[in-house]
Amino acid sequence: MKVHPECYNCFITQAIRSSKLHTGNKEKILNVVQGVIRKLTNIDHSLPPPIISEEVYETIRKELVVDDPYKDIKRKYNDIAKSYSDFSKAKIKNSENKLMCALKLSLAGNIIDFGGEMDKFSIEETINDTLASGFHINDIEIFKTKLKDAKNLVLLADNAGEIVFDKILLETIKNLYPSLNIHVFVRGGNIINDVTVEDADYVGMGDTAKVVKTQKAIPGFWPDFCDEDCRKIWEDADIVISKGQGNFETLSEIKDKRIFFLFIIKCRVVAQFLNLKKFSKIFLNNNF
Amino acid sequence: MKVHPECYNCFITQAIRSSKLHTGNKEKILNVVQGVIRKLTNIDHSLPPPIISEEVYETIRKELVVDDPYKDIKRKYNDIAKSYSDFSKAKIKNSENKLMCALKLSLAGNIIDFGGEMDKFSIEETINDTLASGFHINDIEIFKTKLKDAKNLVLLADNAGEIVFDKILLETIKNLYPSLNIHVFVRGGNIINDVTVEDADYVGMGDTAKVVKTQKAIPGFWPDFCDEDCRKIWEDADIVISKGQGNFETLSEIKDKRIFFLFIIKCRVVAQFLNLKKFSKIFLNNNF
Repeated sequence: MKVHPECYNCFITQAIRSSKLHTGNKEKILNVVQGVIRKLTNIDHSLPPPIISEEVYETIRKELVVDDPYKDIKRKYNDIAKSYSDFSKAKIKNSENKLMCALKLSLAGNIIDFGGEMDKFSIEETINDTLASGFHINDIEIFKTKLKDAKNLVLLADNAGEIVFDKILLETIKNLYPSLNIHVFVRGGNIINDVTVEDADYVGMGDTAKVVKTQKAIPGFWPDFCDEDCRKIWEDADIVISKGQGNFETLSEIKDKRIFFLFIIKCRVVAQFLNLKKFSKIFLNNNF
Repeated sequence: MKVHPECYNCFITQAIRSSKLHTGNKEKILNVVQGVIRKLTNIDHSLPPPIISEEVYETIRKELVVDDPYKDIKRKYNDIAKSYSDFSKAKIKNSENKLMCALKLSLAGNIIDFGGEMDKFSIEETINDTLASGFHINDIEIFKTKLKDAKNLVLLADNAGEIVFDKILLETIKNLYPSLNIHVFVRGGNIINDVTVEDADYVGMGDTAKVVKTQKAIPGFWPDFCDEDCRKIWEDADIVISKGQGNFETLSEIKDKRIFFLFIIKCRVVAQFLNLKKFSKIFLNNNF
């Protein structure tokens, strides 16, 4: 999905929100916004928004002189999500459709997001609502068919906190398909509250899957930004779970039927793109 | 009130909204947004938002190659407002407090706005609500005291449509204070749905007051942008009714107790500035 006019608004909203985490000084916040504006003057309109976000957040970090504006928030939400671990595992254990239940919880975890138009959220409400109501697009039957023959699965991680629910999803899949070889791709550097190697380690992802660092601090996966090892794992994958809207924004640009997008729609632009409402729950096989 | 970080968001929102009145072509809209972004790279942070708006809308008009993107909308809302004329006059006639009733209706007319964060509005609901509930800040007693001794009154007009209710307010004031000399200041050129000489003529303002054209297409009055005649009328005024948030944003910068701001708060920045909620109804003597 290429950048839309409304994305410019969103970049500025994110600049303001990130700045306010570190300063109440209006002049400093205006300087961050000005820096972002200058960066946005020559955007290539054929790019998906997350690719542009890399430069936007680099500007924010430089102007704020902070390496990771979301460091504390990421730790906080990793801990909050961990507190839902036992509940989630019990829910899955007692469920008749364990895979479906684990997918729902992983999707619910996607509500933990500080990018885009997200102002506030409730993890508990989202979990309850998702378990009760399910998905607006649901390609689980195609997913199950592909899983049967799959040898290698890649999960493209999205946000801190959310990663705890993703780990539980991968444990569930591993119990059902024990011979599956699983990799989790994380961001190449600090960007919003997205998962880095440190977050994956913090939640013990290494016990469940091999963690692979991609090469750039972009809040959406792009195969070109992989080193040789990562690239090979990507190419060898038979099935890909792409978590979050950022990964959708980049990967909806390539036709790749291995990919299943699992995310909550969080902005009007993506809602319009998919002809659904904001906050719709998506489990969609890539058919673009 | 000086520009705030959130105003940058608002400038882009306005660029998108204005563009969509004329084209559904995403690339054209992106070009308008890009043009506005370039214009915003070197903003003087000591300026009030309406002064910056002049350049923002000039860019929008140039990029769209349209002299007045709001021409049809202004005509439409002048006509809609006219359809409330008889109702409004009857309400005032039957009111025990005619001045208060006319002020309320003039304030209600201020809901007709296509700038800032305004997405949609209902004139009828706003009229009913304002007549029923009144103002959140109400300096009518100071206003009445000043009116008693006033010789010259200036009303700073705001939006097309709204001007119909302002005309009725001025007729009411003139009935109560027949010796008052009344001028209405309008914008110096096309800007959003703000009143120009053409709009004032269209609603017959000349029957009630002398219409004065200011010098620039700015959605907020600034005394420096007057020619000699306009400047003299401004200086001779004993009392000023400043309609709309745009005029508040500029004139809250100067200490001038002659000014009474009559407007609905339409954005978070002004709401925060006045420590009130969005959509609060203001009749405030300038005490900044």
